[in-house]
Amino acid sequence: MQQTLNLPTPGALVLLPVVYMVWSETLIDGQENKPFLKFLSQADWLSEEDKSFLKEKLSPESPPTREEMEFWWETVHAASEESKNYPNLVSLGIDLLKKARPEALYSFPLQRAEKELAQLEKDLGIVGQAAALSFKSSHSNVSTQYETREDFAVQALTELLDGPRKPLIDSLKQYLATEDFAYIQPDDLEKYRNQVLSWCRLLAGKGYGSIGYPTDYGGKDDMEAYFTVMETLSYRDLSLVIKFGVQFGLWGMSVLSLGTKKHHDKYLKAIGTLELPGCFAMTETNHGSNVKGIETRASYDHESKTFTIHTPHRDARKEYIGNAALHGRMATVFAKLLIDGKDYGVSTFLVPLRDEAGTTLPGITITDCGRKMGLNGVDNGLISFDNVVIPKENMLDRFSSVDAQGNFQSPIASDNKRFFTMLGTLVGGRIGIPRSALAAAKSGLTIAIRYGDRRKQFGPEGGEEIPILNYRMHQRRLIPLLAKTYACHFAMEYVTNRFLKRQEEEMQEIEALAAGMKAYVTWHTTATLQECREACGGKGYLSENRIDALKNDTDIYTTFEGDNTVLMQLVAKSRLSAYKEQFENMNLFTIINYVASKTKTSITEKNPLIIRNTDENHLLDPDFHLSAFEYRENSILDAAARRLKRLMDEGMDPFDAVNVSQHHLVNVGQAYIERVILGKFIQKVKQTPDPAIQTVLNKLCNLFALYQLETHKGWYLEQGYMEGVKTKSIRKMVNQLCWEIRKDAVPLVNAFAIPDACLAAPIAL
Amino acid sequence: MQQTLNLPTPGALVLLPVVYMVWSETLIDGQENKPFLKFLSQADWLSEEDKSFLKEKLSPESPPTREEMEFWWETVHAASEESKNYPNLVSLGIDLLKKARPEALYSFPLQRAEKELAQLEKDLGIVGQAAALSFKSSHSNVSTQYETREDFAVQALTELLDGPRKPLIDSLKQYLATEDFAYIQPDDLEKYRNQVLSWCRLLAGKGYGSIGYPTDYGGKDDMEAYFTVMETLSYRDLSLVIKFGVQFGLWGMSVLSLGTKKHHDKYLKAIGTLELPGCFAMTETNHGSNVKGIETRASYDHESKTFTIHTPHRDARKEYIGNAALHGRMATVFAKLLIDGKDYGVSTFLVPLRDEAGTTLPGITITDCGRKMGLNGVDNGLISFDNVVIPKENMLDRFSSVDAQGNFQSPIASDNKRFFTMLGTLVGGRIGIPRSALAAAKSGLTIAIRYGDRRKQFGPEGGEEIPILNYRMHQRRLIPLLAKTYACHFAMEYVTNRFLKRQEEEMQEIEALAAGMKAYVTWHTTATLQECREACGGKGYLSENRIDALKNDTDIYTTFEGDNTVLMQLVAKSRLSAYKEQFENMNLFTIINYVASKTKTSITEKNPLIIRNTDENHLLDPDFHLSAFEYRENSILDAAARRLKRLMDEGMDPFDAVNVSQHHLVNVGQAYIERVILGKFIQKVKQTPDPAIQTVLNKLCNLFALYQLETHKGWYLEQGYMEGVKTKSIRKMVNQLCWEIRKDAVPLVNAFAIPDACLAAPIAL
Repeated sequence: MQQTLNLPTPGALVLLPVVYMVWSETLIDGQENKPFLKFLSQADWLSEEDKSFLKEKLSPESPPTREEMEFWWETVHAASEESKNYPNLVSLGIDLLKKARPEALYSFPLQRAEKELAQLEKDLGIVGQAAALSFKSSHSNVSTQYETREDFAVQALTELLDGPRKPLIDSLKQYLATEDFAYIQPDDLEKYRNQVLSWCRLLAGKGYGSIGYPTDYGGKDDMEAYFTVMETLSYRDLSLVIKFGVQFGLWGMSVLSLGTKKHHDKYLKAIGTLELPGCFAMTETNHGSNVKGIETRASYDHESKTFTIHTPHRDARKEYIGNAALHGRMATVFAKLLIDGKDYGVSTFLVPLRDEAGTTLPGITITDCGRKMGLNGVDNGLISFDNVVIPKENMLDRFSSVDAQGNFQSPIASDNKRFFTMLGTLVGGRIGIPRSALAAAKSGLTIAIRYGDRRKQFGPEGGEEIPILNYRMHQRRLIPLLAKTYACHFAMEYVTNRFLKRQEEEMQEIEALAAGMKAYVTWHTTATLQECREACGGKGYLSENRIDALKNDTDIYTTFEGDNTVLMQLVAKSRLSAYKEQFENMNLFTIINYVASKTKTSITEKNPLIIRNTDENHLLDPDFHLSAFEYRENSILDAAARRLKRLMDEGMDPFDAVNVSQHHLVNVGQAYIERVILGKFIQKVKQTPDPAIQTVLNKLCNLFALYQLETHKGWYLEQGYMEGVKTKSIRKMVNQLCWEIRKDAVPLVNAFAIPDACLAAPIAL
Repeated sequence: MQQTLNLPTPGALVLLPVVYMVWSETLIDGQENKPFLKFLSQADWLSEEDKSFLKEKLSPESPPTREEMEFWWETVHAASEESKNYPNLVSLGIDLLKKARPEALYSFPLQRAEKELAQLEKDLGIVGQAAALSFKSSHSNVSTQYETREDFAVQALTELLDGPRKPLIDSLKQYLATEDFAYIQPDDLEKYRNQVLSWCRLLAGKGYGSIGYPTDYGGKDDMEAYFTVMETLSYRDLSLVIKFGVQFGLWGMSVLSLGTKKHHDKYLKAIGTLELPGCFAMTETNHGSNVKGIETRASYDHESKTFTIHTPHRDARKEYIGNAALHGRMATVFAKLLIDGKDYGVSTFLVPLRDEAGTTLPGITITDCGRKMGLNGVDNGLISFDNVVIPKENMLDRFSSVDAQGNFQSPIASDNKRFFTMLGTLVGGRIGIPRSALAAAKSGLTIAIRYGDRRKQFGPEGGEEIPILNYRMHQRRLIPLLAKTYACHFAMEYVTNRFLKRQEEEMQEIEALAAGMKAYVTWHTTATLQECREACGGKGYLSENRIDALKNDTDIYTTFEGDNTVLMQLVAKSRLSAYKEQFENMNLFTIINYVASKTKTSITEKNPLIIRNTDENHLLDPDFHLSAFEYRENSILDAAARRLKRLMDEGMDPFDAVNVSQHHLVNVGQAYIERVILGKFIQKVKQTPDPAIQTVLNKLCNLFALYQLETHKGWYLEQGYMEGVKTKSIRKMVNQLCWEIRKDAVPLVNAFAIPDACLAAPIAL
């Protein structure tokens, strides 16, 4: 039953946009039409017909029908195309009058109507300009039109990221993209684990496994290549990279670093070819972070010249040991060396676990750790030793040994120092892991950013839906993480190089750098993949889009190779010490009179003009960024040193004093690492020759710096290093940079050059 | 070859603790023995024997042997028991002299030695008191001795948490702890899904499924009980709770709320018994958050009086639909109603999917969503309709219908308003989901806190290892999350009650509350479970300890029932509007002249004495907390309103203006929700009669408030609402409260009373 609908009388016509708006926004709810009724009672320039129409149409008892609403909208809409932009609804209403009833215009009191109606709109809370726009069939705006551009050569940026190792990376990527490495369903634990083992064999066959070993043992003596391989494998499957790392890194490198020539000759080649799968058995159920407290015993027998390896109780079993549940045939076992019942501290021993047929040897009990949150292609297990006897030569004797007379021998007198020297040789793991983590973050960001560029949702009234990456909030979620990923990439490049060229006297610094970067990057990865999951909504939850695996596989990265919180405290400890020795072996109470002069802020920095400076050139000045990071690093460090000293001077037990300051110490570590990262990023930007790439890297570097300053703004304000006006400008600049980088975001993830076959997420291909 | 070791001469004996420390801390490394050599050159009170011994022992070329170090330690250690506390190493050295060579004491220049040695210690950077302690076999300290206490009756707190629904909760918990609900391995998708279906049947059999339906249809008309059941089921298996929610909540409640008596009569009973499994088919691949944009069509045929349901293209398929892949037999389908080709907006239709044998009906194509990050016991699927014809009575016609003449009819003229009225009836889901999420957070915290109380790692020199929950950093990671969980619990109780007693005019507020709490609580759950995973280290990664499942199952909670970021913007929109209508149907540009007077800070609050007040009573005053939260809430809201108005007044396109302010708007939502939560928590504390429980709840409430103030300190400092001295005191107070609550932490999680059979994590039983 179609109603017959007529245009209202001229006065009511001018008000039609307002009437429509009142109903479509359901502003009428008993009380809310009061401003309108008041207006009607005063507007004596309206005719009686006008008023009666309006009163009827504004009554909550007689709402308009759907057809009427539609008719009104069509009528107003037709008129709304007359002008590009209306300041309010009344000006639109007047155009409507002009168009529909031009004859009525002459007698119409335009000025009064404009004035009183503008007031009515205000009283109703209508933002007129915006409301008028909503009658247009579509309107363009910045958010809609914004899109991806390619302002730089993606391939050139990939070359910059890969560096001299590009040929190795490319050939490995190509290999990983073949059918040999096709993803399998990870549901069946056994199948998955065997598949991962086969993959490792394929890689060993191509010489990737032994690449870091000396050439005498089939290797290429190329540790940098080893790290590069770890990183590149991470684009494929993270169980693969961890299984690979357990075999060729932890197991092989422990034999190489803790053993001597006899061990190398006997085992290293077979390890590199995966002929001899093995384990690294350090962690015990009761002792993870505190490795020094492990309870597995290696008792020396003078007569038979053997060691008896024994697990004293259930909670002293080796736990989470990779390669143990199924494939490992031998293990580097960390145990307390006992000679005549006397404890000589932790040493390492090669203990056979299984025969060639894979049968567990007598005295060895292995339990499967079972299903884990991730990395289910790795067969982690618990190992228990029941008085397992091994020959004397199975002691890895580079740092400690038992001589022919049965006396303990070591080039390092202090048990403490020896222990940390041993562990120090294994620092490489703390470089491999963050590089692997960062590769996972790159995969996640590639998926989320490509999806965000394509996925459209919502849009302006009457307009097209827009890519979700055009939303400011979506940019804020992903773009700073992209900037931090680039920052971490260059910092890992730096730390890798420092490690490769290390001198003895730099070891404390390099160990702190590696520990700190491991913690920083793996936390960053966890946070990034969480954000990527949420940013992809339901699609991010489907396993086919791989964020599931990336997230769950890397979740343990913040724990293994050193719990991140413990590592950050080690970094702090190292920073608190002015001595350049192995830092892990120093008790925190050996605090040096820290050179306070280093931390004094120059007068320039706290100049009132500077702390309130919101000039764009200043906010984007790398010198400002680096000074601010350095100021934070040094102030926090200085305050921590003073605080510890004060607490102990006041008589607090040193252990308690360190405990009370623990949160502070973690911040010391983080502030140091962030300063290092920023310093290296700034340097990288300066050295980049290609101007287009330099421009985009500079934006990323600015965003990394300012986003961190924004994150820590509470601290800077507390210190009086910045004032509120400046931190607010920083926030605006962060938003602005996110917006600017958004158009480069897809090319920036494309520069990671992750092969489609590896990325594999349907939403990102 | 045991060396013969002799005590050094008296002067050297006094220095022995320093010599030992220098070596054990490896302070000697080329240069670092310089202060020592300088001291030796000046200390003419030392004998030639003393000096020659010391010089030899300090040479980097001739480090002491391991035996020598041990002998020194034993010697100093024996003397160190003489006094409880040494201020420095020299005083310990003098006791050593007293004990080993009492005869030498008379001629020894005690005063000079003390003075010069104290200086030497300082020059070497040794904190003497701490170093001296390290020679003692053990020493007690606060961190070691601290432990769990039960200062309140756990059961009484459980009663407070459960409230009047305790009998229902208890009986359901008991049922869930039976063998019927024993956990199964989730590896096999098919098995797991069928198991979950069987569990739902068991629950339906006991009447839990229909508990929220009218009594006429086998229910108990008790929505509160329905929410309580959702929450309690969440202690068991989250796939179970979601499958249960899809069937009895989404599917059943859509028939109840959107249909009319004919639909209720025909279907509701069978839904409540699970005789008729069904789906809620709203989301499409291309339209998730923006439901209004869905493209599935329902075209009316005048002649046959039928609707033809059709999926126009692949990306318009219904996606992520629970119960669809395997079990659903019918669905509530959201589709655009078309009559004679004219679009009448979104309506809902009952569409049969499968016959009783489970065979998919003609025209229906269902694809399995496959494996997901979690919730793999729920069979999510994609549904495609190929011109599926359904009778007219299958339209759920409470809000829109087609009359006998084929005309569209609706009690609500505006398509916009009708759409949001329909969605508004489904707001219950936004109460059920956060309550389920919070139950998962409680499970995670129970596991992590119990484990932290037992797990020991590291400890003072020579002392026992201590529970990791005694570490300040560990407390900081978990205790504020525990406080927030309690805070959210009481807030959800409040929101549930508001919803149950809702009046039409409160709906906008209640929808905003539910949307905001859904976002706030689910984000809190994601963050909490991440922290719990890391806090449990490797154990947290093993699936057997269930954080895996809790975390992965709830990860999607931040997305479904409304993406959290979108929801927080809806909350902001509601807050920006002074009108009490359904808020979702209002365009953001309809911004009301927000009453600025509400947000003016009283002079008292910004009084210089207050912004610097660090008095403990003030910091722990709930009035201070609430004022600070309200100040933030109102200021951010006011600023957002002004900003939007300004941008649009300046001519910015309204859509762009909202986009530019998006981050700000999310903060508006969060600040509002946090204020609500705090207000309800304070009220709860005040109303708690049991003084012991009141004390501990008060601490939790203080911690929640202060932790949030610390989190937002950057903002408060920017505003000049607090000065640095105050925010620093707040940080200290947060640390202090974490420390105090730590002893109550285990009883506090025990009060959640999660049955062991449900918790199931070996590390927490």
